[in-house]
Amino acid sequence: MSQPTTGASVKGWLAVVGLGPGADDWITPAVTAALAAATDVVGYQSYVARVAPRAGLTLHASDNRVELDRAGHALRMADEGRRVVVVSSGDPGVFAMASAVFEAVEAGPAAWRALDVRVLPGITAMLAAAARAGAPLGHDFCAINLSDNLKPWALVERRLRLAVQADFAMAFYNPRSVSRPQGFTRALAVLRDECGAAGSPTRPVIFARAVSTPDETLRVVALTDAQPEMADMRTVVIVGSSLTRVIARDGVPWVYTPRSAPPEVSA
Amino acid sequence: MSQPTTGASVKGWLAVVGLGPGADDWITPAVTAALAAATDVVGYQSYVARVAPRAGLTLHASDNRVELDRAGHALRMADEGRRVVVVSSGDPGVFAMASAVFEAVEAGPAAWRALDVRVLPGITAMLAAAARAGAPLGHDFCAINLSDNLKPWALVERRLRLAVQADFAMAFYNPRSVSRPQGFTRALAVLRDECGAAGSPTRPVIFARAVSTPDETLRVVALTDAQPEMADMRTVVIVGSSLTRVIARDGVPWVYTPRSAPPEVSA
Repeated sequence: MSQPTTGASVKGWLAVVGLGPGADDWITPAVTAALAAATDVVGYQSYVARVAPRAGLTLHASDNRVELDRAGHALRMADEGRRVVVVSSGDPGVFAMASAVFEAVEAGPAAWRALDVRVLPGITAMLAAAARAGAPLGHDFCAINLSDNLKPWALVERRLRLAVQADFAMAFYNPRSVSRPQGFTRALAVLRDECGAAGSPTRPVIFARAVSTPDETLRVVALTDAQPEMADMRTVVIVGSSLTRVIARDGVPWVYTPRSAPPEVSA
Repeated sequence: MSQPTTGASVKGWLAVVGLGPGADDWITPAVTAALAAATDVVGYQSYVARVAPRAGLTLHASDNRVELDRAGHALRMADEGRRVVVVSSGDPGVFAMASAVFEAVEAGPAAWRALDVRVLPGITAMLAAAARAGAPLGHDFCAINLSDNLKPWALVERRLRLAVQADFAMAFYNPRSVSRPQGFTRALAVLRDECGAAGSPTRPVIFARAVSTPDETLRVVALTDAQPEMADMRTVVIVGSSLTRVIARDGVPWVYTPRSAPPEVSA
């Protein structure tokens, strides 16, 4: 049963928190404390399922692709004096709920701008994946959401090409879903084209799936050997820069990007 | 006093961990557990100073710019059977010690490739800064180390220009130091030039200093008003994409990058 509705004189708040990629011991104590103080938890159902039920806490699980509704609901409850936590996996500021909350704030009543809204960071998927692989994001890198649900594919392709030209290491979120099986196939083709032109067609590609959960898998292949079906929506894909190194060993190799770049790279 | 040296039959390990940006409650329990199990902690002196001394734990603090020596020292101790934690602030995989450790592994004896080396992620500075500001990294973004100690300035400039052309939001680490006062001045000039050419010369710039510490400050200005002296080595600078929004309110405004991009952006 939920707590009785508090009066408007009670100060509510909204915390947008990151639960990290899966393991409980990768959740920060600040996030754990926010959850312990909350009256309401709002989020996509599989993330809300990671929060332990308790007396006085109402769990509001919703379907995917209703981020703005969810954000508005959370803001209304905070405005009514409730202590609301919006949960994301990973970090809430990276392809997750924080943007949706601020989008709703901007479009909502002016009073929402006076609300106590905090974002509590978490371990984002690419840094979890990078940690398992070694240090592939150890120098300049970019993060691209490969889903074209909310942006044109042409923009995805343009960013891929420029990222290779900038010689960034690259991390890709949402590489491939059942409803968009072709996007990642096209992304790999663009990467092969640009990385070939850049003279490093065999740079390493890391497929890191469900890192820190019991389903975790990690695979490292050359870009020339990367196949679309190596990724799904639980996978983060990391592609090295032209300088990224692979250290062969028993089992999955370590991959790292050196801290330094030689002068000739800038030519 | 340190623990007695263990024999080669005892299995040592090396954990490269992230202490996050400063606040104790932003350190993951996994990192806390590694520190509790360690016999030796290795790192730059101001990060080692964040680890509480205790019986059985030897703290090895070193100066900056000796990352490879430090990594080799840590690997040698792990190979001797000790339980070694290398500490970084933020996340160890982002412009921090993880790359140096794997660089040392690659250059070192073959036996090091069989060592138990783990990287434990942390809250990296740009995500801490983004959380404080709102959600400026809510869509595709890049992270660039502005120091040209280990790479040519021409590469920094090239990456800045391509990042603007890709319309990434951008996070800059190590923007300005006493020994390199001119680099950030040049970076701002490049950004003004490219963002002007892209038609969004006044996009927001966030200066987030020492986030989650008692010295925290946060400032949001238009790119046209950004000044080099707004940054130092404890500052992360975030520059919005052309779509990044500023929500005016009492105090520091909220800044976020929307989850979606309109079709015309790809033109």
